[in-house]
Amino acid sequence: MKPRRICIVGTGLIGGSFAIKLRQKGIASRIIGVDNNVEHQRQALDLKIVDEIMDLDDAVKHSDLIAVTTPVDTMIDLMPSLLDQIDRQVVMDMGSTKGRLVEAISKHPKRGRFVATHPMWGTEHSGPGAAVDQGAFKNKSAVICNAFESDADAISLVKWVYKRIGMRLLEIEALEHDLHVAYVSHISHITSFALANTVLEKEKEEKTIFDLASGGFESTVRLAKSTSTMWVPIFAQNRDNILDVLNEHITQLRKFKSCLEKENYGYLIELIENANRIRKILK
Amino acid sequence: MKPRRICIVGTGLIGGSFAIKLRQKGIASRIIGVDNNVEHQRQALDLKIVDEIMDLDDAVKHSDLIAVTTPVDTMIDLMPSLLDQIDRQVVMDMGSTKGRLVEAISKHPKRGRFVATHPMWGTEHSGPGAAVDQGAFKNKSAVICNAFESDADAISLVKWVYKRIGMRLLEIEALEHDLHVAYVSHISHITSFALANTVLEKEKEEKTIFDLASGGFESTVRLAKSTSTMWVPIFAQNRDNILDVLNEHITQLRKFKSCLEKENYGYLIELIENANRIRKILK
Repeated sequence: MKPRRICIVGTGLIGGSFAIKLRQKGIASRIIGVDNNVEHQRQALDLKIVDEIMDLDDAVKHSDLIAVTTPVDTMIDLMPSLLDQIDRQVVMDMGSTKGRLVEAISKHPKRGRFVATHPMWGTEHSGPGAAVDQGAFKNKSAVICNAFESDADAISLVKWVYKRIGMRLLEIEALEHDLHVAYVSHISHITSFALANTVLEKEKEEKTIFDLASGGFESTVRLAKSTSTMWVPIFAQNRDNILDVLNEHITQLRKFKSCLEKENYGYLIELIENANRIRKILK
Repeated sequence: MKPRRICIVGTGLIGGSFAIKLRQKGIASRIIGVDNNVEHQRQALDLKIVDEIMDLDDAVKHSDLIAVTTPVDTMIDLMPSLLDQIDRQVVMDMGSTKGRLVEAISKHPKRGRFVATHPMWGTEHSGPGAAVDQGAFKNKSAVICNAFESDADAISLVKWVYKRIGMRLLEIEALEHDLHVAYVSHISHITSFALANTVLEKEKEEKTIFDLASGGFESTVRLAKSTSTMWVPIFAQNRDNILDVLNEHITQLRKFKSCLEKENYGYLIELIENANRIRKILK
């Protein structure tokens, strides 16, 4: 396929990294940035992540593909009116929840032009300055939800883009997506935020945390650097699934607590060996 | 200082990686491996991690420095009789708990020859095959506990070794060490084991975990690959501190749960912004 004029709505970590890849892989002939944060607009231009900044209305007119990477609450507010404005363009989102979004536009006359996606990649950083080339998207799954509601040419374009940036394609129904990501993504953020709060509560000496933190601690707590702007809307939209897995997680932690309290090290070994099964699933 | 004959007791991840660094930095003239696992003995020789394998008694006689990197329960069984056998050699341990160990040998006539240490580095892998050069130990803290109980020359030697492999030195009293590592290391392992068990319980489709796992999930769950052989003795020895921090962690998780149940997103933002303070502590 030939290069396209692509508009990135939200020039932060995901939108910015996506823009870098689009340019690098020759997918975009021109990249237009849309962002309501003036500082992010400036950074996105300075870092040459986008070619120009436009208002959303103008950007839509001048683009073939519009990728929306805003927080998921903004996406629901934005998407119906965005679809109102398009003609034959393709619109995709790259958000972490899908159920509410596809529901919000399910009856829209331009629903076919929209492709619901979730690339399973990100870091704990945010803003255009966090956008990276190295390691972004590659070899991770790009989930496409409710493909049956999208026009065939729109799906083809989005799949072509994701394949070109090295992603593995996966199709899942939107509500099923939300269930699974509660397990393999959203709960990790909650545990990481809670772990940071635990350590900040117990360890009043910040210097001691800095001095003693090993790679293991940094690894389990790094997601706690993620912003509330991005994550509170995700938690709100996927509330029921997350509550379900969070309850299970507290139950699992209580088992460890009970083992320690009762000095039941035989069962503690069992719990750890069960957890070790994750080895064969993740590399 | 001149290179030494160094004995590594336990040729796994820590002992093996330490041996690789000792050789690379010209710290050791000869490296003797001691391991009660015959397969590990063979691997340590095949991978040229050690020059030869000996029984502990022989190895002690032929070494200037003995580094013990076994699980922490073995260490307590082993250390008194090991100290019985030494003359002017220096013995160091590299374990994750310190209180019980220094207590177990506090009255030993050779206590001065022993240096209690904890290098704040490791990975989730184990055995000689997991030993690595890249990134091992460097720029992490090497904690020395109860230095006042060790002979000056023994402390000097151990500090010289840790400095040569790029570590930052830190002196902490043993019980204080155990308290702090419960916060910044041991709890991370418990949360990671429990998170793996949560996901394995909720997500019966292992392929879905594999397909959807992002870097974030892998990061929070990777410590769950750690072995029970290494970690159950650590949890047992540091039980009271870990129970204390685990209770706090469950309390913190309940706050997230309550926010979601009550849809109190204002407080959820506060919890996340508090967790974000970890940003300025960790890089």
